[in-house]
Amino acid sequence: MARYFLEVAYRGTNYSGYQAQENAPTIQAALERALEILHREKFELTGSSRTDAGVHANQNFFHFDRTEALHPQAVYKLNAILPGDVVVKRFYEVPAEAHCRFDAVARSYAYYVYRSKDPFLADRAFYFPYTIDLDRMQAAAKMLMDYNDFTSFSKRNTQVKTFQCKIQQSEWVQHGETLIYRVRANRFLRGMVRALTSTQLLVGRGKIGLAEFQQIIEARNCELASFAAPPHGLFLEAVHYPSELLTNCVSNY
Amino acid sequence: MARYFLEVAYRGTNYSGYQAQENAPTIQAALERALEILHREKFELTGSSRTDAGVHANQNFFHFDRTEALHPQAVYKLNAILPGDVVVKRFYEVPAEAHCRFDAVARSYAYYVYRSKDPFLADRAFYFPYTIDLDRMQAAAKMLMDYNDFTSFSKRNTQVKTFQCKIQQSEWVQHGETLIYRVRANRFLRGMVRALTSTQLLVGRGKIGLAEFQQIIEARNCELASFAAPPHGLFLEAVHYPSELLTNCVSNY
Repeated sequence: MARYFLEVAYRGTNYSGYQAQENAPTIQAALERALEILHREKFELTGSSRTDAGVHANQNFFHFDRTEALHPQAVYKLNAILPGDVVVKRFYEVPAEAHCRFDAVARSYAYYVYRSKDPFLADRAFYFPYTIDLDRMQAAAKMLMDYNDFTSFSKRNTQVKTFQCKIQQSEWVQHGETLIYRVRANRFLRGMVRALTSTQLLVGRGKIGLAEFQQIIEARNCELASFAAPPHGLFLEAVHYPSELLTNCVSNY
Repeated sequence: MARYFLEVAYRGTNYSGYQAQENAPTIQAALERALEILHREKFELTGSSRTDAGVHANQNFFHFDRTEALHPQAVYKLNAILPGDVVVKRFYEVPAEAHCRFDAVARSYAYYVYRSKDPFLADRAFYFPYTIDLDRMQAAAKMLMDYNDFTSFSKRNTQVKTFQCKIQQSEWVQHGETLIYRVRANRFLRGMVRALTSTQLLVGRGKIGLAEFQQIIEARNCELASFAAPPHGLFLEAVHYPSELLTNCVSNY
């Protein structure tokens, strides 16, 4: 019996999220079906990082156990079976006790905002045409790095025991008419990146001052953060593991 | 009474083409509805360059006549009414006899092909993972410039009187894993860019030799060209008018 990590990327537009659920298309269900078609037996995947309906990923992981070898051209074959918006990148063989969710040491997200209407960004960025002050948004992004409790940016219906997160990167980057909020942390709370983004956008518009932004953080109150920025602007960019974990790539393009 | 040209861009994925038809969403219908909502009266648009279902445009035009002035913020307001995948760029006031289809002196198309599966290109490029010889495709692209009858690359059910086209640009451009076929001509036949692209891709794969490619062109026979490359890789890039026609922009962002 060997354990494998499966690295994937996907456009979330046509999916009801990452994790399998009945009667709804999910990334997990699409992958399990493709694996089953190729290997002629059931696969049960364990997911690394849940993404909501409509959220995209440039990198996400699953793990599974298997006694027999994988198909020698597993990546190529699976990509031919899968629809165009779900892509298998690589398989890694990992130690039997490795876990794709618990062993992740950090995750990186990017939230895309565009300022001038563009038909080719409508499904992958949030249209926000208002005048904004990027310097103030940058100051808000930096301020977040001074805190480690993000209760104010979590959804209420969550089962976590703690709202502590260690933010390692938090910054706005500008590419032409597109603004990208990049954030990396050891862990994220439910809805956190979308709530952080929308609240900072209101800081940029001048609807919330920097002092008020600080009060929102310090209040540790789920009721205070503003609307959640829509899912279609959010990308899971990377799931970070200890470097020794993913050294044995057994199938790629 | 004044005549206006309306410049638009759109992602064709969710539309049954450019021109209005009953019981199907089209770019024209979306624009006429938005104009009617804003101005509270019917608009009747005449289209410049028909695009098939699923084909995209970075630039296309309509014209219409109107006695009263346009809404002073027409572009901004219409974009708020329109869905995210159809964008109004500009309105131009033009001479009363100007015609957005007949006055076009040339059109430019780009066909996007990607070689390595990417979930974010699935709706806007053609996945073609086979080994290809780009030099041979480039030679085929150049060869097309020596001819002016493209019957072999036209659909049969067409009402045109002549299959003559003057190709002004025909070349393959490589950007990383993406290949782009760029073609500009004074006019195009039905299905022409998609047939040119697919036939050149078969040249690239070695399924068709350059001599055979030349024979296909010279045969002037609609039956010979290969499968049509799918619509979702095709972009109408620009409609070219005499420079004096579009000098009076009356509304933009």
